[in-house]
Amino acid sequence: MPRCAVTRRVHFNAAHRLYNPRFSEQWNRETFGQCSNLNYHGHNYELELTVEGEIAPETGYVMDLNQLKELAQEHLIRHLDHQNLNLDVPWFQSLNPTSENIALVCWRELRPVVPAELALRVRLWETPRNYVDYEGA
Amino acid sequence: MPRCAVTRRVHFNAAHRLYNPRFSEQWNRETFGQCSNLNYHGHNYELELTVEGEIAPETGYVMDLNQLKELAQEHLIRHLDHQNLNLDVPWFQSLNPTSENIALVCWRELRPVVPAELALRVRLWETPRNYVDYEGA
Amino acid sequence: MPRCAVTRRVHFNAAHRLYNPRFSEQWNRETFGQCSNLNYHGHNYELELTVEGEIAPETGYVMDLNQLKELAQEHLIRHLDHQNLNLDVPWFQSLNPTSENIALVCWRELRPVVPAELALRVRLWETPRNYVDYEGA
Amino acid sequence: MPRCAVTRRVHFNAAHRLYNPRFSEQWNRETFGQCSNLNYHGHNYELELTVEGEIAPETGYVMDLNQLKELAQEHLIRHLDHQNLNLDVPWFQSLNPTSENIALVCWRELRPVVPAELALRVRLWETPRNYVDYEGA
Amino acid sequence: MPRCAVTRRVHFNAAHRLYNPRFSEQWNRETFGQCSNLNYHGHNYELELTVEGEIAPETGYVMDLNQLKELAQEHLIRHLDHQNLNLDVPWFQSLNPTSENIALVCWRELRPVVPAELALRVRLWETPRNYVDYEGA
Amino acid sequence: MPRCAVTRRVHFNAAHRLYNPRFSEQWNRETFGQCSNLNYHGHNYELELTVEGEIAPETGYVMDLNQLKELAQEHLIRHLDHQNLNLDVPWFQSLNPTSENIALVCWRELRPVVPAELALRVRLWETPRNYVDYEGA
Repeated sequence: MPRCAVTRRVHFNAAHRLYNPRFSEQWNRETFGQCSNLNYHGHNYELELTVEGEIAPETGYVMDLNQLKELAQEHLIRHLDHQNLNLDVPWFQSLNPTSENIALVCWRELRPVVPAELALRVRLWETPRNYVDYEGA
Repeated sequence: MPRCAVTRRVHFNAAHRLYNPRFSEQWNRETFGQCSNLNYHGHNYELELTVEGEIAPETGYVMDLNQLKELAQEHLIRHLDHQNLNLDVPWFQSLNPTSENIALVCWRELRPVVPAELALRVRLWETPRNYVDYEGA
Repeated sequence: MPRCAVTRRVHFNAAHRLYNPRFSEQWNRETFGQCSNLNYHGHNYELELTVEGEIAPETGYVMDLNQLKELAQEHLIRHLDHQNLNLDVPWFQSLNPTSENIALVCWRELRPVVPAELALRVRLWETPRNYVDYEGA
Repeated sequence: MPRCAVTRRVHFNAAHRLYNPRFSEQWNRETFGQCSNLNYHGHNYELELTVEGEIAPETGYVMDLNQLKELAQEHLIRHLDHQNLNLDVPWFQSLNPTSENIALVCWRELRPVVPAELALRVRLWETPRNYVDYEGA
Repeated sequence: MPRCAVTRRVHFNAAHRLYNPRFSEQWNRETFGQCSNLNYHGHNYELELTVEGEIAPETGYVMDLNQLKELAQEHLIRHLDHQNLNLDVPWFQSLNPTSENIALVCWRELRPVVPAELALRVRLWETPRNYVDYEGA
Repeated sequence: MPRCAVTRRVHFNAAHRLYNPRFSEQWNRETFGQCSNLNYHGHNYELELTVEGEIAPETGYVMDLNQLKELAQEHLIRHLDHQNLNLDVPWFQSLNPTSENIALVCWRELRPVVPAELALRVRLWETPRNYVDYEGA
């Protein structure tokens, strides 16, 4: 069967602060600049979820994108949307919420609930001017 | 010579309905939901056509994108634009017009008319919130 | 109190055909070109809903945009999304579903349920390349 | 001289929480929902600044948009970017940072430094799905 | 009859340099900065053309947007696309090609060929970050 | 350590003309059409810079995107922005400034200043309708 990749975009709005508690406040300020500001700032995150695999002959689908959207809602968005990533989201209790790490976490949370025969990739836009790609490597 | 990939966006507006006639109406409704509604719905499809190969030293082109646009117009767009994919387009007489299958068909129709030494990939946006990639696998 | 305008974007996918049954098939073909094709085509409609009025001092809102979104869902989107405008939507039984008329109908359906002291305007994108504005004039 | 309007887009990323301290926690929760979450969330705000007036015959400009950008940087962006609107920005100490109020404040801060003969309008996008317009009314 | 406004987007790519020959090279450099660089720079101009008037009951159109597109092609785009505005376009022989003046010229060229009962407005995007509106004032 | 790719968008406005001086004016006209017009035209180039590598555990970064932006400004943008690529930029003195070649040059200029352990890829948008990808092949 032919293989292709299908992508669904979802989004969440969150506050965060870049901060590594194992280093000094000064190191954090020098390393992360104003992204380390004490009282947080925030973003409209846009998340592209891609699954790749064979097109099923009965449906013509690799995967029903409504199902993918529901998985994202249940396993990602309801934990992230309108939250403070540093304070409210356990995944970032000991992990700095950079775009790289947020993409990593989204992939790790979604991987077990997406059919194993499908590859999974995520692209996370932090702003319209920068994004991160992670595919489980 | 260095290799790179060049992409041209084209677009078409079409009606469709997701439906597999080998299954019952009930199966189609349960599988495709409102995408299976009897009287069709439609989309502004945006199609990205990518060709990859060596940059020709005389022109600095991998391929003239105006030529690629004309091939797309002749071999794809004039068959798809302002049509009902299920009723008007022979390619979908026995093929469910999901985004996956539309991308597949666009690739198969365009592949023979693009120079053989160039790789071809297509990305089809069905809405601004979902898209499909196919590269001939 | 200061006045401002707040806008929420919603969307629906639909099939339609431009056709005036009071005229001949030939007139329709000459007037609407391929937009009049017999078996319909379709679009991803993006609808911007704007309400204008005083900012309430208690809330800092002109109107809660989540409430506006729910009104749009109840009074517009559930009637339009994944439908054939000509066949499935009573509003267009004797009204040609041009962008102008769709915008008009959306305004007329929403006007009675938006607080009377707020002005209402709609912008309807038929494609990323054309849109219509209507404000009740 | 002919009159026209020129617009420059700028942007800032900030955290906020919708909250009116004159009301109970319960009222805030019922009124603002998850936008009132205790630990803040955030947005990529995109701000469009429009000035309208006569085209100066010597320059062909209504106003140099680089100058408008610098005024925005000095009087708006450096106070708002990477900040917590509730905690870090004095303008919102007793004003709920809704999109309406942020637009209002941006207009009031910029109005005195834009030439008096030019009209000023602002459009603030809180997300790609909603925005506010304020023009000093 | 109800009134509304319909908009069509078109585009052209052009080179230009901001320069007023009645002033010194130094004045031009100080006034226009690098926009005055001797050997030109360029833009992908996106032009939104809006006509406003009554919806015709026979067609449901204010104006056929394909006709508006053809008028734009004939009267604007073929004169501007892939040209040097300063050197190749007579309209700018004694007029500095700022966005304001380009919008003005587009309006003046299109006004006589758009039906007189329809209002005409133009919005010209010079970059994705700035635009100009002109409506004949 | 997990690997991912991070991307930053930057932009520059420039004039150019497609032209190969080793061939006749007629060959250039036939090959490049109006892109070969004598007096240049121009574009708003949008450039996406992607670096791929391991996420550093101390920072959660593959690379600080502000540093990548500064490298782009110093090594690319200040040489290209508001310039005539054919006349002002030495890189194109004997190289036709097609999108392919501009992407190639941007990669070659940036490669030595990006840490060697990070892969580098560039995507150059010439218009919103076409782009080129180059990754050093």
